[in-house]
Amino acid sequence: MNKIDVCVSPALYSLHHNPESVVVVVDILRATSAICAAFMNGVKHIIPIGTIDEARACKEKGYMVAAERDGLVLDFADFGNSPFNFTPERVAGRDIVYSTTNGTQAIQMASGAHHVVVGAYFNISALARWIVAQKRDVVILCAGWKNRFSLEDTLYAGALAHQLIGSGAFETICDATNAALDLWQVAHHDLQNYVLKAAQKARLAKHGLDDVIDYCHTPDLSNIIPLLDGERLVPVEA
Amino acid sequence: MNKIDVCVSPALYSLHHNPESVVVVVDILRATSAICAAFMNGVKHIIPIGTIDEARACKEKGYMVAAERDGLVLDFADFGNSPFNFTPERVAGRDIVYSTTNGTQAIQMASGAHHVVVGAYFNISALARWIVAQKRDVVILCAGWKNRFSLEDTLYAGALAHQLIGSGAFETICDATNAALDLWQVAHHDLQNYVLKAAQKARLAKHGLDDVIDYCHTPDLSNIIPLLDGERLVPVEA
Repeated sequence: MNKIDVCVSPALYSLHHNPESVVVVVDILRATSAICAAFMNGVKHIIPIGTIDEARACKEKGYMVAAERDGLVLDFADFGNSPFNFTPERVAGRDIVYSTTNGTQAIQMASGAHHVVVGAYFNISALARWIVAQKRDVVILCAGWKNRFSLEDTLYAGALAHQLIGSGAFETICDATNAALDLWQVAHHDLQNYVLKAAQKARLAKHGLDDVIDYCHTPDLSNIIPLLDGERLVPVEA
Repeated sequence: MNKIDVCVSPALYSLHHNPESVVVVVDILRATSAICAAFMNGVKHIIPIGTIDEARACKEKGYMVAAERDGLVLDFADFGNSPFNFTPERVAGRDIVYSTTNGTQAIQMASGAHHVVVGAYFNISALARWIVAQKRDVVILCAGWKNRFSLEDTLYAGALAHQLIGSGAFETICDATNAALDLWQVAHHDLQNYVLKAAQKARLAKHGLDDVIDYCHTPDLSNIIPLLDGERLVPVEA
């Protein structure tokens, strides 16, 4: 049996790091949902970038750049962090540099793992199948918000752990995983309503950006797993 | 309305620190349960100490010392971390130096808050009354295990938050608090069985120390709040 760990904040990742594991990075509202949407819509590669300075330098080199902080598009960027921005017209066949408040840093942080992939509801069942096929322990890394615990990311961790345990190939002795599984049991009957109490809903609403919440909780729109390959995310079908 | 924050790991405390707040330190299995048991049994003061070297130095100065790491009593200590050790015969009227794997460090970490108090099921309702009377925001700091998320500490945070919100004087916009409240709703009907899946149960069982789990989840045996006063914990009646 392989093991599931849930890491509820990037600040705790060193406690969960395992160079032999698959790490799933999760930032449901909105970075990893946007990345999965971009691949659904035909993006070729996404290059996750941590700092604003690096993102600006990429723009100056001619890349298309998606970059936001605290929900607001940076002035030099082509567009921001909403999954709705990554339309086929804009992204199909292109490479995009992407930098966000929480999610892209978490991807870079996990780069010492055996595989790093990006999770969202959009690809959850495909992702579970792909992880089972790897036959490795998995760490679900919740990007959270500025290192704080995030309800919507932890819930997703519970949803994914539920599928993994359901496969019969995984078990857990991790308290955060057990908590996430129980939260998923509480929330899954009425997920869209449940997540309205998440602090991120209020943060997004302040800028009129909470229109994505329902969409970002829609399962199984895609079979594409964004996989970190060197410094870029590439699409893998599952 | 005052606010409730739950901090699920000492490694995240800097995100929750508020010099005007009351901090409740929680390490149900077993440090804060043992501290509350000691005050129930008449201890005069408890001096929380972080490092093993400091604890040894206190022993050499003639203090009674309770000290453990990973559930095992340190060789120079008088006894370890089980609430059963703090009997009236041993502790009544005495000062005790106390050092544990997780809990005592968390108490020291929080010492910049307006008040630092120690929470356990033993004093939960008295503690809720006392906190309401302070008319301040509260941070519930889960000591966890070596900075990992702990199921039993987070559940207690949910139980205490439930009482505080029930008083009508508190609200929360904190995701970890909302998660803890929902976990408490899942677990409270059958708490003693629920906590058997906590990782700390397995750690304690390895050393035959899991006999305290039921006792440590017994509510309202005491009206004493251990309050940090300088470098020592003193009893306050509530």
